[in-house]
Amino acid sequence: MLSGMSAPYELFYWPEIQGRGEFVRLAFEEAGATYVDVARKPGGMNAMMNLMKPRSAGVSPFAPPFLRHGPVIVAQTANILFYLAPRLRLVPQGEKSRVAAHQIQLTIADLLVEVHDTHHPIASALYYEEQKAAAKKRSAVFLRERMPKYLGWLEGILEGDSSWLLGRRMSYVDLSAFQVISGLSYAFPNAAAKMKRRAPRLWALHRRVEERPRIARYLASPRRLPFNESGIFRRYPELDLPRGG
Amino acid sequence: MLSGMSAPYELFYWPEIQGRGEFVRLAFEEAGATYVDVARKPGGMNAMMNLMKPRSAGVSPFAPPFLRHGPVIVAQTANILFYLAPRLRLVPQGEKSRVAAHQIQLTIADLLVEVHDTHHPIASALYYEEQKAAAKKRSAVFLRERMPKYLGWLEGILEGDSSWLLGRRMSYVDLSAFQVISGLSYAFPNAAAKMKRRAPRLWALHRRVEERPRIARYLASPRRLPFNESGIFRRYPELDLPRGG
Repeated sequence: MLSGMSAPYELFYWPEIQGRGEFVRLAFEEAGATYVDVARKPGGMNAMMNLMKPRSAGVSPFAPPFLRHGPVIVAQTANILFYLAPRLRLVPQGEKSRVAAHQIQLTIADLLVEVHDTHHPIASALYYEEQKAAAKKRSAVFLRERMPKYLGWLEGILEGDSSWLLGRRMSYVDLSAFQVISGLSYAFPNAAAKMKRRAPRLWALHRRVEERPRIARYLASPRRLPFNESGIFRRYPELDLPRGG
Repeated sequence: MLSGMSAPYELFYWPEIQGRGEFVRLAFEEAGATYVDVARKPGGMNAMMNLMKPRSAGVSPFAPPFLRHGPVIVAQTANILFYLAPRLRLVPQGEKSRVAAHQIQLTIADLLVEVHDTHHPIASALYYEEQKAAAKKRSAVFLRERMPKYLGWLEGILEGDSSWLLGRRMSYVDLSAFQVISGLSYAFPNAAAKMKRRAPRLWALHRRVEERPRIARYLASPRRLPFNESGIFRRYPELDLPRGG
């Protein structure tokens, strides 16, 4: 069923940010898988850009991240994780579980677009400073309505007696939820402190992921890039709620 | 492999817009499948809202569209199509083709978010009139940079000798590309007329889809809702390029 079992996993992503690539890195790290983070190696950026050129047959990636695994190239973060998860044993077997996991991952992907647009509501190609007024308005709506809606939905899934989003066993979507909470806590520390009180199960899940031995080792290693103001989650204090707010 | 073959397909989506539900409707229509467009039936909106409530076990949809097929509920448009396509014979068999199709569909999903944000760059919950200044700025960047980037990528896939995005046979992503071109031509007629000259293969694909007998019958039927100013693709002339521009 799962072809290319012995081929190496090559991840292609921008070398200086966590960004969307981080969701794939976390899956590899938790699984203890060997992978190459290609663009962080010498010559890797060229290799990445070459693979994005139009090809005479087949579909080139529209944007990083993408994965090369033997003859298969998979682009789009959620698609990469859908492909990898059964191979890394990070999702229960069966179509129903995979569909549920994918729904959660795609909803997280939608959230990420909205997080990005808090600081870039007009255009990715413009500087933040050129769209700061719109960014303030969009961030206010995001923190007041959208973040609570998304995180409330995730919190709702954790109600009842399940420790993890898919039930009794950890899966890749828990790693993704961890990354979202980490990022929101970095970008909007005041709003996140407030949200934590409304979504305690989600913050508890975040802590459980953080303490898993392989994830803890990864987070302490140089492989984990720090958050910064070039990624999706950016700390611009003027976009956060006021302290204690 | 494909469970629930005999259960009915029930689509849940807002009853008054094409929106994201339309991508699923087009797949059903092209396949000649029997489906229920639940929220357009009496009592259907209640049924839809009930299914979105948090459940004691499992994952409720975050938002429409979602599909119920026997015991399985699938949310997120691209996930629904990934689930349906092999059942409706709208994708070649094999993981490699399914992964490539899904990448295209997810990239189209990203484009749809950007189209929506041309008229709602600050907040979905506010009226267009309340964010018109930002909408003009965002639309200008969308038409100048983003639309050509996305459509140029799709056009690039069609170069060489393939008539369809996955090669020799039509698949569900061609239906989705058709819908994107239809929507952009409705929302931005001037910009679309200009773009057509740069992406002739994509417009030829649009015409081939439109002329398929089942699609042509569907488009002429009352099941096809008209475009309007409540959906993703909205015609606000002030956001388009000037005529001949």
